[in-house]
Amino acid sequence: MASKSFYAVIAGVGAGTGRSVAVKFSKAYPVVLLARKPESYNDIVAEIKQAGGEAIGISTDTGDPQSVAAAFAAIKKEFPNKKLAAAIYNVGAGRAIKSFLELKVEDLDESLANNARGLFNFAQNTLPQLLESVDDAPHPPTLLITGATASLRGSARFATFAAGKFAVRALGQSLAREFGPRGVHVAHIIVDGVIDIPRTKNYTVNDGKPDGKISADAIAESYWHLHQQHRSSFTQELDLRPYVEKF
Amino acid sequence: MASKSFYAVIAGVGAGTGRSVAVKFSKAYPVVLLARKPESYNDIVAEIKQAGGEAIGISTDTGDPQSVAAAFAAIKKEFPNKKLAAAIYNVGAGRAIKSFLELKVEDLDESLANNARGLFNFAQNTLPQLLESVDDAPHPPTLLITGATASLRGSARFATFAAGKFAVRALGQSLAREFGPRGVHVAHIIVDGVIDIPRTKNYTVNDGKPDGKISADAIAESYWHLHQQHRSSFTQELDLRPYVEKF
Amino acid sequence: MASKSFYAVIAGVGAGTGRSVAVKFSKAYPVVLLARKPESYNDIVAEIKQAGGEAIGISTDTGDPQSVAAAFAAIKKEFPNKKLAAAIYNVGAGRAIKSFLELKVEDLDESLANNARGLFNFAQNTLPQLLESVDDAPHPPTLLITGATASLRGSARFATFAAGKFAVRALGQSLAREFGPRGVHVAHIIVDGVIDIPRTKNYTVNDGKPDGKISADAIAESYWHLHQQHRSSFTQELDLRPYVEKF
Amino acid sequence: MASKSFYAVIAGVGAGTGRSVAVKFSKAYPVVLLARKPESYNDIVAEIKQAGGEAIGISTDTGDPQSVAAAFAAIKKEFPNKKLAAAIYNVGAGRAIKSFLELKVEDLDESLANNARGLFNFAQNTLPQLLESVDDAPHPPTLLITGATASLRGSARFATFAAGKFAVRALGQSLAREFGPRGVHVAHIIVDGVIDIPRTKNYTVNDGKPDGKISADAIAESYWHLHQQHRSSFTQELDLRPYVEKF
Repeated sequence: MASKSFYAVIAGVGAGTGRSVAVKFSKAYPVVLLARKPESYNDIVAEIKQAGGEAIGISTDTGDPQSVAAAFAAIKKEFPNKKLAAAIYNVGAGRAIKSFLELKVEDLDESLANNARGLFNFAQNTLPQLLESVDDAPHPPTLLITGATASLRGSARFATFAAGKFAVRALGQSLAREFGPRGVHVAHIIVDGVIDIPRTKNYTVNDGKPDGKISADAIAESYWHLHQQHRSSFTQELDLRPYVEKF
Repeated sequence: MASKSFYAVIAGVGAGTGRSVAVKFSKAYPVVLLARKPESYNDIVAEIKQAGGEAIGISTDTGDPQSVAAAFAAIKKEFPNKKLAAAIYNVGAGRAIKSFLELKVEDLDESLANNARGLFNFAQNTLPQLLESVDDAPHPPTLLITGATASLRGSARFATFAAGKFAVRALGQSLAREFGPRGVHVAHIIVDGVIDIPRTKNYTVNDGKPDGKISADAIAESYWHLHQQHRSSFTQELDLRPYVEKF
Repeated sequence: MASKSFYAVIAGVGAGTGRSVAVKFSKAYPVVLLARKPESYNDIVAEIKQAGGEAIGISTDTGDPQSVAAAFAAIKKEFPNKKLAAAIYNVGAGRAIKSFLELKVEDLDESLANNARGLFNFAQNTLPQLLESVDDAPHPPTLLITGATASLRGSARFATFAAGKFAVRALGQSLAREFGPRGVHVAHIIVDGVIDIPRTKNYTVNDGKPDGKISADAIAESYWHLHQQHRSSFTQELDLRPYVEKF
Repeated sequence: MASKSFYAVIAGVGAGTGRSVAVKFSKAYPVVLLARKPESYNDIVAEIKQAGGEAIGISTDTGDPQSVAAAFAAIKKEFPNKKLAAAIYNVGAGRAIKSFLELKVEDLDESLANNARGLFNFAQNTLPQLLESVDDAPHPPTLLITGATASLRGSARFATFAAGKFAVRALGQSLAREFGPRGVHVAHIIVDGVIDIPRTKNYTVNDGKPDGKISADAIAESYWHLHQQHRSSFTQELDLRPYVEKF
C-alpha cells in the first residue's frame, strides 16, 4: 500500500503530535523525522520499523538554515530517487509564560527562531521538492503547519509565544496563497488544548473530564485527511480542540 | 457496515453538496433528505436505494417551524427505533446579488428565513435527538452546517446574503459552545468557491483551470471526516476552496 | 458652530449610548431621535433643547419598513431643506439569554427584526440622503452602527442575540464596501462591556472596579471622532471596552 | 496647554505617520523622536521647535536592545523630571516583496527585528514608565502600535513582511491584555493603504482618485483620539483606509 517513490518529512518530533503524525504517514510513505536531539526520534523510528515501515531520524535545528540544508542533503543521499509527498512542520518552542516585564529579548528570539525562522527554513527546502511532485504524487503534495491557541490570540503572559505563532500563521497564509495555485496544499492547524502525552499526564485540564486532553492520534487523523483532500477542495485552516474545551 | 440503529438527516438537498453528503453518509446510515420540492430529492433517493442504501425524502420548508416539526414527526413514524447520528444543514438561499438600494426587505427576509431561521428550526429538532445518541453512537453525534465565503465577509452587493450567512455562523458557534461539552460535535464549513454542478457547468471560474470548481464529492469527504473526529479533537470550523481560488 | 443646513438622526435612543450620541451630535447639528416609545426620547429632546440645541423625537419601530418610511417622511416635513450629515443605528434587542433549547423561534425573529431588519430599513432610508450630502457636508456623511461582543462571538446561551448582531455586522461591511467609494463613511463599533446607565447601576462587573462599566459619553466621543475622520482615513471597525474588561 | 511634566516618544519617524504623529503630540507634550538616522528626524525636530514645541531626536536602532536602552538613558538625562504620557511604535521594515523562494532568511530576520523585536525592546523600556504615569497623566498612558494590511493577511509575495506584522499584532494584544487592567492603554492601528508622502507621490493607487492615498495628518488625528479615550472605553484595534480602498 505504501508508496515507495515518495516520502514524508516531519520536523518537530517528540512524544505528541509529531510521533502520531509520523506513525500515521509511515503507513503510506517512508518517513524522515527531524528533531534537535536523537532521543526525540529514536524510539519512534524503531516503532515504525517494527511495524514494517521505513523511517530515519536526522538531528536538526530548524532555526538554523545550515542545519536544515544539511538535513535535506542527507535525505537526498538516503533517498536519491524519492520525491516528497508531504512535509509537516510541528516545531514549537519559546513557550516562556511570564509577565511581559520578566521576559527577556532572548525569549522572543527563541520563539521567533523555532517558530517562524524554523518554518521559513523548512519551507525553503521542502517547497521546491513539493512542486516537483505535483504531477505524479498520490495526493496533492502537502505542507502542514501546526499552530496553537496562541496563533489567533495574544493572551496576557504569552507575548513572545504568541509572536512566534502569529508569525508562523502569516507565513502559512502567504505560502498557501502563493503555492496553492501551483498545486501544493498548504494548511495550518490550530491545536487548541493540551495534548495527552506523558509530560501532561498530571495536568488537570477541563476538570479532569475524560478525553479532556487531545489525543495525538486523533490529530494525526486530521492531518492525514488534509493530505488526502482533492485539489478542488483544499482546507487552509482548521481548529482542533477537546469537546469540553472553553473557547 | 451501515448502522441500522442510527440515521442521518440532510436538509437542503439538491444537485451539489447536499446530494454528495447524502450519498456519502448513506454508506453508513439510512438517510433522510429534506428539501422544499420532491424533485430536489427524488433522484437522489432513487440513486441511494439502487446502490443498496436506505433513503427517504420529505418535502420541508426549513424556514417554517411547523413544516420542520412535521418532517421530524414523519421521520419518527418512519424510523421509530432509530437514533440520530448526524444532522447536516445545507440550506442556502437569499442569494440576491444587487446594489443595496435595489434590494427589498423581502430579500433580507428570505435570506434570514432560509439561513438563520431554517438552521434554528433544524437545530431545535435535531439537538435533542443528537444528545440522546451521545452514549452509544458509532461516532460523536454531529451537527454540520454549510457556510460560504459570505459567512466571513460582507461584500458589496451581497448585503442580504451575507446577513443570513453571518447569522448562521453565529448560531453555529453558540451551539458548538453549548452542546460540544455535552458531547455533540457542531461544525461550520466555509465553502469558498463555485461548486461543480450542472447549473454551474457554463460558469467560467478561476480562468477555466481544471478543478477550479469544487467537487461536491470532495466536500462530502470532509463532512465525513468531521463526523468521524474523536471527541478529544473536534474541529469547529474549516474552509474548503479550490487550489486556484483567490482568497 | 452648529450647522443649520444638516441634521443627524439616531435610531435607538434610550438611557445609554443613544442619549450620549444624540447630545454630542446636537452640538453640531439638529438631531432627530427615533425610538419605539416616546418616553425613551422625551427627556433627551428636552435636555438638548434646554442646552440650546434643536431636537425632535419620532416614535418608530425600526423593524417595520412602513414605520421607518413614515418617520423619514415626517423628518422631511419638519426639515424640508436640511440634508443628512450623520445617521446612527443603535437599536439592540433580542437579548434573550437562554439555553438554546429554551429559546423560541420568536426570540430569533425579535433579534433579527430589531438588529438586521431594523438596520436594513434605516439604511434604505438614510443612504440616499447621505449620498446627496457627499459634496457639501462639513464631514464625510456617516452611517455608524452599534455592535456588541456578540457581533464577533457566538457564545453559549447567546445564540439568537449573536445571530442578530452578526447579521448587522455583515450588513455594515457590505454597506461600507459599496458606499465608501461613493463617499459615505460606514463604520461598525463593537461595544464590549456593560454600559454605565441607571439600569446597570446594581450590576457588579469587573469586580466593581472604578470605570469598569463603559461611560456612554466616552462612547459618544469615539462616534464623533469617526464622524470627523477624513475620507482618506476611514475606520470601518473599532472596539470599545473598559480597561479592566477581559477579552 | 502643553503639559510640561509629561513627554511622548515616537519610534520610527520619517516622512509619513511618524512625522504627523510627532507634530500632533507636540502640541500637548515635549516629544522625543527615535529613528535610525538623524536625517529622518532632524527636519521634524526643527519644524516642531519652530512652531513653539519641544522636541529632541535620538539615533536608535529599535531592533537592538542596547541601542534602545541607551536612547532611554539619554531621555532620562534630558528630561529628568518628566513622566511618559504616550509611546508610539511606528517602525516598519522588512518589506521585501518577493516570491517566497527568492526570499532569504535575512529578509525574515530583518522583518522580525524591526517589527517584533523592535516593539519588544520599545515596550520593555516604555511600559514601566507608562505604569508610573497612570495616576496623574492627563490621559490614560498610551502605547500605540502601527500595523498594516499585512497584520491581518499573509498575501502571496509578502511572507516575511506579514510574519513581522503578525508578530507585532500578537505582542500588542498580549500587552493590551496585561497592561490594560493596570491602566495603560495599548492599541494597534491597521493602516490599510498607501500613505501620501513624497516617496509615494508617483504611485498610482485607487485609480488616482483624490484622497486615494492616506493623509498622514488624518492618521495622527486618530492616534490622538486613541490617546484621549477614557479608560472605561478603550479601543484595542482599529483600521484606517481611504474611502476608495478595496478591502
